[in-house]
Amino acid sequence: MEQILLAHGGGGEETRELIEGIFRRYLSNPFLDRFEDSAVLDIPDGGIAFTTDSFTVSPLFFNGGNIGKLAVAGTVNDLSVMGARPLFLSAGFIIEEGFLIEDLERILQGMHEETEKTGVMVVTGDTKIMPRGQLNGVIINTSGIGKLLYRGLSASNLNVEDGIIVTGTVGDHGACILAEREGMGFELDIPSDCASLWEILKEVLDSGAEIHAMRDPTRGGLAAVLNEWATASGTEIEILEHEIPVEGSVRGICELLGMETTHLASEGRAVIAVKNGDEGTVLDSLRNHPLGKGARLIGSVTDRGKKRVILRSPYNTRRIMEPPSGELLPRIC
Amino acid sequence: MEQILLAHGGGGEETRELIEGIFRRYLSNPFLDRFEDSAVLDIPDGGIAFTTDSFTVSPLFFNGGNIGKLAVAGTVNDLSVMGARPLFLSAGFIIEEGFLIEDLERILQGMHEETEKTGVMVVTGDTKIMPRGQLNGVIINTSGIGKLLYRGLSASNLNVEDGIIVTGTVGDHGACILAEREGMGFELDIPSDCASLWEILKEVLDSGAEIHAMRDPTRGGLAAVLNEWATASGTEIEILEHEIPVEGSVRGICELLGMETTHLASEGRAVIAVKNGDEGTVLDSLRNHPLGKGARLIGSVTDRGKKRVILRSPYNTRRIMEPPSGELLPRIC
Repeated sequence: MEQILLAHGGGGEETRELIEGIFRRYLSNPFLDRFEDSAVLDIPDGGIAFTTDSFTVSPLFFNGGNIGKLAVAGTVNDLSVMGARPLFLSAGFIIEEGFLIEDLERILQGMHEETEKTGVMVVTGDTKIMPRGQLNGVIINTSGIGKLLYRGLSASNLNVEDGIIVTGTVGDHGACILAEREGMGFELDIPSDCASLWEILKEVLDSGAEIHAMRDPTRGGLAAVLNEWATASGTEIEILEHEIPVEGSVRGICELLGMETTHLASEGRAVIAVKNGDEGTVLDSLRNHPLGKGARLIGSVTDRGKKRVILRSPYNTRRIMEPPSGELLPRIC
Repeated sequence: MEQILLAHGGGGEETRELIEGIFRRYLSNPFLDRFEDSAVLDIPDGGIAFTTDSFTVSPLFFNGGNIGKLAVAGTVNDLSVMGARPLFLSAGFIIEEGFLIEDLERILQGMHEETEKTGVMVVTGDTKIMPRGQLNGVIINTSGIGKLLYRGLSASNLNVEDGIIVTGTVGDHGACILAEREGMGFELDIPSDCASLWEILKEVLDSGAEIHAMRDPTRGGLAAVLNEWATASGTEIEILEHEIPVEGSVRGICELLGMETTHLASEGRAVIAVKNGDEGTVLDSLRNHPLGKGARLIGSVTDRGKKRVILRSPYNTRRIMEPPSGELLPRIC
């Protein structure tokens, strides 16, 4: 078996061979191995979080990860920012005919390693094959179920004077993909920040700080998250431009290509809104963890009713931080 | 807004417009409308079923349904056959740049109508846009969560003497798609059987009959389900060929194109393994329902240890019913 054939999607013998011979080698667990139409799961009492995300990133392999790692981390993070411990994932693969099994295995290895980090399991899956030319490469959908440990986190919960914290530099993933696409990957060496955030965010939630909202700034970047929060909570948020942590190489490629760093996707960062006075607790908690070393307080909620994001420059000038619009980058995640 | 633009996938303003202006019009409910990274749900105590399926059917619109209706019914059915009441769906759309909004709305209308029938809700979603030429049309992933009402249904639970029942004619969906692709759709008028089965299967489960396994015969058809069951339970299943209900037009197109009716997908049928003696109870229950009028007892589990499916002809000859293999039909569901 060297490459994916249409027969692998037929639901018969070859489908079974692909699942048992390849997928199971990387994703095996007692739930998935039952091969029923649904996984049967016991969820501890209480609420759950449920999320879905399709990953279409191109190239499939990039500095610091691949689409498989990204598909696990992305959905783990969507659960984590809602205060839910990620438990179970589904994985829906759509693969172009002719795709190399060797590449599929690298992707599955990426998924496997990333599931181990958080302790989530892929418990149900599906594979479809598209005829050559009807899909470019591979697409993965992961949906996830998490056990809700903390209630009340919401974009609408921001209060005046809340501190706004980012857990690290922003835009690394977007800049990494940009660099790969422009053929500058090797020169610039911008690794994606792609990572699962449950552990670090759980520590923040357990730190005693009063957290109002968390969000991972993926497509649309920091600017999209902050604008959504301002709209949902009816507040004005003011960000100190020079406090936003950005890698030099990320700033460089943005200047070169005329992009805003605050519009670029991160895949291993979170933005956190925390009650005024608790910012230090959050920063201390984050900085204890390798993924949070670059955490920074970048601004605060300054007013109610205005629903906008203000960017204050080092020279104290103020301008609106617009939500991103236009084409930006297709297939960034 | 007439067609899908790359900007609709950017995560910024246009994404918001697409979601609020179009998606919300068809799928709105209090969970989805919160627009957080995950839906927060309360699940009644006890077990759940979790499943995922990606839908790549081509053409997107067919006799008796469209990809939206199919994406709801397919996932509802995967939960239902495990004895779980379908509660919550996720919907991940991947759309080609240039796709007509009008067609997207027809698809969403199909989803909306099908969710109403079972009372499921789409509580979380995601939309990605692929550049023109990198995807042919639209793909939808639906994952689903159901509340487990009946435990113990499993492919491995078949016992000797169990009756094997189908809820209606087999292969209608596959034949419908074949006819549409071959340009014979109008002449042959083969409607897809695409339908949500929760109601009718719940009645079967409540009928008092001892049900051992249920499965919807989608990709790979009846032959795939029966072979999986024989393998998983270590049994020999014998099917009476002339008892398998097949529409005349479905049989016709299969003869014309050299296909096996038992390899063609159904999208609104179930195969049921029931304890010997309880077959009549199941058939009575099924035939009370419009979707079960054509239910038939087609065979039984005849032996332990052989792991194969035997097809007995009207002339009493016996041959192996092989699991499907080879290319079959890509993009059938």
